Amino acid sequence: MNIVLLDPRQTLSEVWSITSTRQLAHLRTHLNVQVGDRLKVGIREGQRYLTEVLMVSDSVIQVKPIQTEPVPAKLPVTLIVAMPRPKVLRRLIMDSVTIGVEKIVLLHSYRVDKSYWQTPFLQQIDQYVTLGLEQAGDTVAPKIEIYKRFKPFVEDVLPTWITAERPAYVAHPYADISMPNAITHACTLLIGPEGGFIPYEIELLEKNGCQAVSLGNRILRTETAISYILGRLFT
Amino acid sequence: MNIVLLDPRQTLSEVWSITSTRQLAHLRTHLNVQVGDRLKVGIREGQRYLTEVLMVSDSVIQVKPIQTEPVPAKLPVTLIVAMPRPKVLRRLIMDSVTIGVEKIVLLHSYRVDKSYWQTPFLQQIDQYVTLGLEQAGDTVAPKIEIYKRFKPFVEDVLPTWITAERPAYVAHPYADISMPNAITHACTLLIGPEGGFIPYEIELLEKNGCQAVSLGNRILRTETAISYILGRLFT
Repeated sequence: MNIVLLDPRQTLSEVWSITSTRQLAHLRTHLNVQVGDRLKVGIREGQRYLTEVLMVSDSVIQVKPIQTEPVPAKLPVTLIVAMPRPKVLRRLIMDSVTIGVEKIVLLHSYRVDKSYWQTPFLQQIDQYVTLGLEQAGDTVAPKIEIYKRFKPFVEDVLPTWITAERPAYVAHPYADISMPNAITHACTLLIGPEGGFIPYEIELLEKNGCQAVSLGNRILRTETAISYILGRLFT
Repeated sequence: MNIVLLDPRQTLSEVWSITSTRQLAHLRTHLNVQVGDRLKVGIREGQRYLTEVLMVSDSVIQVKPIQTEPVPAKLPVTLIVAMPRPKVLRRLIMDSVTIGVEKIVLLHSYRVDKSYWQTPFLQQIDQYVTLGLEQAGDTVAPKIEIYKRFKPFVEDVLPTWITAERPAYVAHPYADISMPNAITHACTLLIGPEGGFIPYEIELLEKNGCQAVSLGNRILRTETAISYILGRLFT
């Protein structure tokens, strides 16, 4: 937690109150916050501030904003991932938010176990988004969309997101072309499930404007691949 | 698991026997392996083969090598990380091995909790290395070294690893220079603990030949940062 995220409604008066059990526990245990300390606080979907701690009690920490701080920019990327196992989903959302992905799409695919869509984690995505933003020092949540039908998404939705200035890359171990690096334009990035997209899916993606690109001859786990590729794409 | 790793002693005869409970469970449950199937098998520290499955029983799967396959090259990088929390250590080792790090060093640092060095996970590192290699399709384990004293390591060991052709970069949020990208030479990469290296440590690292470089204004978790930086450094 590198900033404390507050709801705009918590920041209407001159003095702001931090009351979330999770945030209070972290501020006490890890940071041992004391009156007079400086604390970074962000308003969800809004500004980021350096604040001064005015009061510390068991149930509340009160702070006063001193000055604004820049909110880190997002990466101009839409990340489309085949729905992962529930345990992976949690880390994947947090990491993608922390790295600064603009929009995250969870997509069904042939090798995605249908039971993954039943996970209670899907109802808790907003919590992982918050954790990712607090880790990064960001205040603005990415858009998150869910498409449970592969073909209609790839044929009807995806093509409207692709332009010459905003290409779409699908990571595919058997592609001849390498994943680009240090690009200076926006893009859409597609990551398959464990075991990869099936040939039919790769064909359909290519037919609808995606470029299949390879990451070399090592096969990475989904969540590792996402950080690895985003680090490579943008500098 | 994208290859099955065998000990050289398991591959002395013409027919090789897979007997590990973990490997058998994966081959049955996830791949539903049958007689006649092709299976990728690697010999630890040795060659990688395409094999044919000859026999499947409850306690053994027997295969016969058909042809050799290339073992993926390593990245020319030594990764030095401040010892992470036990849960993170496991993923960090697996991911670094999968991505192809040549050598991994676990280092003490001021913000590393001393209790982390007591974790039983340290005795199980070889298991995580195996999982990482099997994920990547690699057969060669990286070197892993442990240094529990920061200053003697940085003053006496680290400088012998640094040359003009093999620089050392330490990720530091407050550095003026950016982390390089798409380098074509070997390097050493240092990643601090949660909360970062303290100023004294950064100074000592710089005095001993490291270059402090920044990743921009987002603060990533250790394991996310490693994949992100390695993707950025090498193409």
